[in-house]
Amino acid sequence: MPDASRRSERSRSAILRAAVALLEEKEYADLTVEAIASRAGVGKQTIYRWWGGRGPVVLDALIDHLGPDGPPSLPDTGDLEGDLRLVLRAIVAELADRRLSATTRALTIETLSSDEFAERMRDRLLRPQLDTIKERLRAARAAGQVRDDVDLDHAVELLIGPAYHRWMMRTGPLTEGYADDMVDLALTALRPAAVRSGAAGGAADSP
Amino acid sequence: MPDASRRSERSRSAILRAAVALLEEKEYADLTVEAIASRAGVGKQTIYRWWGGRGPVVLDALIDHLGPDGPPSLPDTGDLEGDLRLVLRAIVAELADRRLSATTRALTIETLSSDEFAERMRDRLLRPQLDTIKERLRAARAAGQVRDDVDLDHAVELLIGPAYHRWMMRTGPLTEGYADDMVDLALTALRPAAVRSGAAGGAADSP
Repeated sequence: MPDASRRSERSRSAILRAAVALLEEKEYADLTVEAIASRAGVGKQTIYRWWGGRGPVVLDALIDHLGPDGPPSLPDTGDLEGDLRLVLRAIVAELADRRLSATTRALTIETLSSDEFAERMRDRLLRPQLDTIKERLRAARAAGQVRDDVDLDHAVELLIGPAYHRWMMRTGPLTEGYADDMVDLALTALRPAAVRSGAAGGAADSP
Repeated sequence: MPDASRRSERSRSAILRAAVALLEEKEYADLTVEAIASRAGVGKQTIYRWWGGRGPVVLDALIDHLGPDGPPSLPDTGDLEGDLRLVLRAIVAELADRRLSATTRALTIETLSSDEFAERMRDRLLRPQLDTIKERLRAARAAGQVRDDVDLDHAVELLIGPAYHRWMMRTGPLTEGYADDMVDLALTALRPAAVRSGAAGGAADSP
């Protein structure tokens, strides 16, 4: 690798690490290209030249932060409902927090504004995260806890789509109770009929 | 009403009608404040002064276009699944069409960017539309086709949230088959246990 490439690669890494560090410390509104450049020890023109602006550099920083292996698998305790409640509660808690969700808000605006950004965001950041839920559902299906005829991508969207809609449109509070209720509804749709009527009967009989 | 107020009210109406007419004729990208002003026969400074920009005037135009009675009720044929399929197919078809969904995309960006816009959008444009689905589900509940213990706002989100998530994140095709599958999943979650096992049994037995 020639020196110039090595230097570029070092600067690129420094910029991405600076962006992640600032994301953890600051409000998204204060996360300017200037602040990233200053922390990384590069000129802000370098960032504009390589990325064009704040959104794309933040996206690359988050992708870089995920690492080559992507996000860790979800826990599989055998209790599908319990495992999914933890996932959805975590998503809902993040969306409910204005500071934590500011990055998601900014990335969603960029996604709605640019095809190129949307594809990179989907393929490199979102899909790996959705796939962790899909793999947990696949294991549940192998264990007879999810219907064989369900499209697992649809199942993932059934679980998380309502929370994102509520967040985006601000149509109601994002609480733990909401997360649990949406897991309950989704699992009622996803369970095999035999398991479902058993569970529904049990729930109806309980005091 | 003094002459000046009457003139203002006439200009306001002309602007809102011009915006709706242009929305039907043009790409959203071509719907500039200048184009609206020119069609309405006012100066563009009037629009900037009263609304601040394109997003808020388009939102008010759509609210005005709904009229004081809001959107019409959904058809109630007694066949809940059929009625909901029509609704979700229409939503999905609009989201799948880049031209038709450009307005929704622009309004969603504004919603994510401004609290004031978000609240007006939710209360005056979105909620009345979601309520038509909620009322259809309420009638279904009265007819014993939806569980008594379901929160109807959650039920509406279960139906439409996945499609909006798929649209926003571009994670899959928005087709009629997708719409029908999401209605099927949502109704499996929403039906009373007795109806559900009957229906699931019937579906499993059919060729």
